[in-house]
Amino acid sequence: MHVLVLGAAGMLGRKLVERIAAEGGLGGRPVDRLTLHDIVTPVPPAGLTISSTIHASDLAQGDNAARLVAARPDIIIHLAAVVSGEAEANFELGYHVNLDGTLKLFEAIRGVGDGYCPRVVFTSSIAVYGAPYPEPIPDDFNLTPLTSYGAQKAMGEFLLADYSRRGFLDGVGLRLPTICVRPGKPNKAASGFFSGIIREPLAGMEAILPVSEDVRHWFASPRAAIGFIVHAAGLDTRPLGQRRSFALPGVAATVGEQIEALRRVAGDKVARRIRREPDETIIRIVAGWPRSFDPQRALALGFAAETSFDEIIRAHIADELGGTFVA
Amino acid sequence: MHVLVLGAAGMLGRKLVERIAAEGGLGGRPVDRLTLHDIVTPVPPAGLTISSTIHASDLAQGDNAARLVAARPDIIIHLAAVVSGEAEANFELGYHVNLDGTLKLFEAIRGVGDGYCPRVVFTSSIAVYGAPYPEPIPDDFNLTPLTSYGAQKAMGEFLLADYSRRGFLDGVGLRLPTICVRPGKPNKAASGFFSGIIREPLAGMEAILPVSEDVRHWFASPRAAIGFIVHAAGLDTRPLGQRRSFALPGVAATVGEQIEALRRVAGDKVARRIRREPDETIIRIVAGWPRSFDPQRALALGFAAETSFDEIIRAHIADELGGTFVA
Repeated sequence: MHVLVLGAAGMLGRKLVERIAAEGGLGGRPVDRLTLHDIVTPVPPAGLTISSTIHASDLAQGDNAARLVAARPDIIIHLAAVVSGEAEANFELGYHVNLDGTLKLFEAIRGVGDGYCPRVVFTSSIAVYGAPYPEPIPDDFNLTPLTSYGAQKAMGEFLLADYSRRGFLDGVGLRLPTICVRPGKPNKAASGFFSGIIREPLAGMEAILPVSEDVRHWFASPRAAIGFIVHAAGLDTRPLGQRRSFALPGVAATVGEQIEALRRVAGDKVARRIRREPDETIIRIVAGWPRSFDPQRALALGFAAETSFDEIIRAHIADELGGTFVA
Repeated sequence: MHVLVLGAAGMLGRKLVERIAAEGGLGGRPVDRLTLHDIVTPVPPAGLTISSTIHASDLAQGDNAARLVAARPDIIIHLAAVVSGEAEANFELGYHVNLDGTLKLFEAIRGVGDGYCPRVVFTSSIAVYGAPYPEPIPDDFNLTPLTSYGAQKAMGEFLLADYSRRGFLDGVGLRLPTICVRPGKPNKAASGFFSGIIREPLAGMEAILPVSEDVRHWFASPRAAIGFIVHAAGLDTRPLGQRRSFALPGVAATVGEQIEALRRVAGDKVARRIRREPDETIIRIVAGWPRSFDPQRALALGFAAETSFDEIIRAHIADELGGTFVA
């Protein structure tokens, strides 16, 4: 089986390729060929034994997308995107990468013709939702994005559904929860603190908390996110009907509950490395974000995530910190 | 006030321009300049006294959209679209006109800059909905189009909302009910019979009914549709928040109720000019269409339609048949 990963240099892309390399397969089927693509050159994991091809190009430009799908990959994992904060700061770039890039990819797939109909896993986001909404948000609630990123992801979902209905591809759209604990350095994303208040204290560093402890949000670990993608790659899509995208299981936790979980898992000294420093801009942005979901469709389809924030923290310690932390 | 009408050669476009001409204004404000655009040359109504400019071009091509908005029209009525059946039969054409055309228009508006922020009325459609759904469909139900046309209109709605949120335009998206009674010749649209079974008998001709009499659907007259557009042009958009598009009031009627209304308004002899000829393809297509709505937002915003199918038939007789019909 030939798998094409778009956005392979990103956090999820790298973890996905590592998992494919470790298992020698995806969604229960062996992989004998990997094509890795990103706007910057993706680096395959050390010791990869699957035959691989590396591409760096702008998916939305010229015939780059057509070149990537010409070899008729069986599964295409489309993770390539400009993130929320960047799409908001740079309007043109967000539409270029998130809308034009997706359009170009799907058109390239359609252009192959001759019955070609690959599985396409498209990572959407809970950013397709925006306040006001009920709690929890049901599966049939309307999409009301409050950011350009969310609007672009919602449009990608409609393209995915229409190209699937037409038989050009076999799409699954995953509205990923906020990924937490995101590894790496702190970044300027408005959501960054949700990971920062766990990641920095476990590394012995101070973290800034810009919102109040009663802010509730919807989380899954990087490990769970990779699990969603792998499950979607091998999913029987017949039960989806024409509704190809859906919300996923996650953990609804307040910031206070995150901190309590950190205290339980790592002790009080670690949990005390959080400094409260309210930021009105972040408070205002986060107020429009979804807090909890009732993802019945995804659960019925066999998607699974953590069931407590303690588990999310333990997954971070195991997967990123080699099982230890700075007590 | 300068008004730009896109799709001015279509049925709604012509009726809208006639109304602007008759009233000398739109949404309660005087109009001193009209720009009419379509892919074919629109013909202004006889005796039009408002200064007008006529354009025929492909909105999605080159800088045609930029040329149309360079004069900074205050109100833009965006009716230009390839209809449902055509967008389904010709995939490329549907995306070109309905998605690319809308993108080009909004980008042209953004490109004017310098604080330019016109009111944009965008005609979406109940084709953004698809089965299964509750009856009636509530305002916060998700968009699940089952046609390429519906998917393209849904994407137009997300663009409208995001460009409005960014302050590039001030958008109102109208999810028009099925327009009935549509004047003119029978066409091959799957929905054509809903109008045909009223229009042809009133003209002394036989009409074909391809579905059973218990099929329920959601209707408004051409007169009501023009009323929606005029109201949207003058609407205070502040109560919309970020949800710029919404379903509209209409009449939920079964085919049997349509025929009963025809009998009440025009007599039994007219109503007997309908011949039952089941068509499995049309039966299957129509089964996925929405049947009724609970359009609370539109009602609160002051949008109004007919309240019975009898009224819809009377509007057709008054507006299209000079007050008479073939008894």
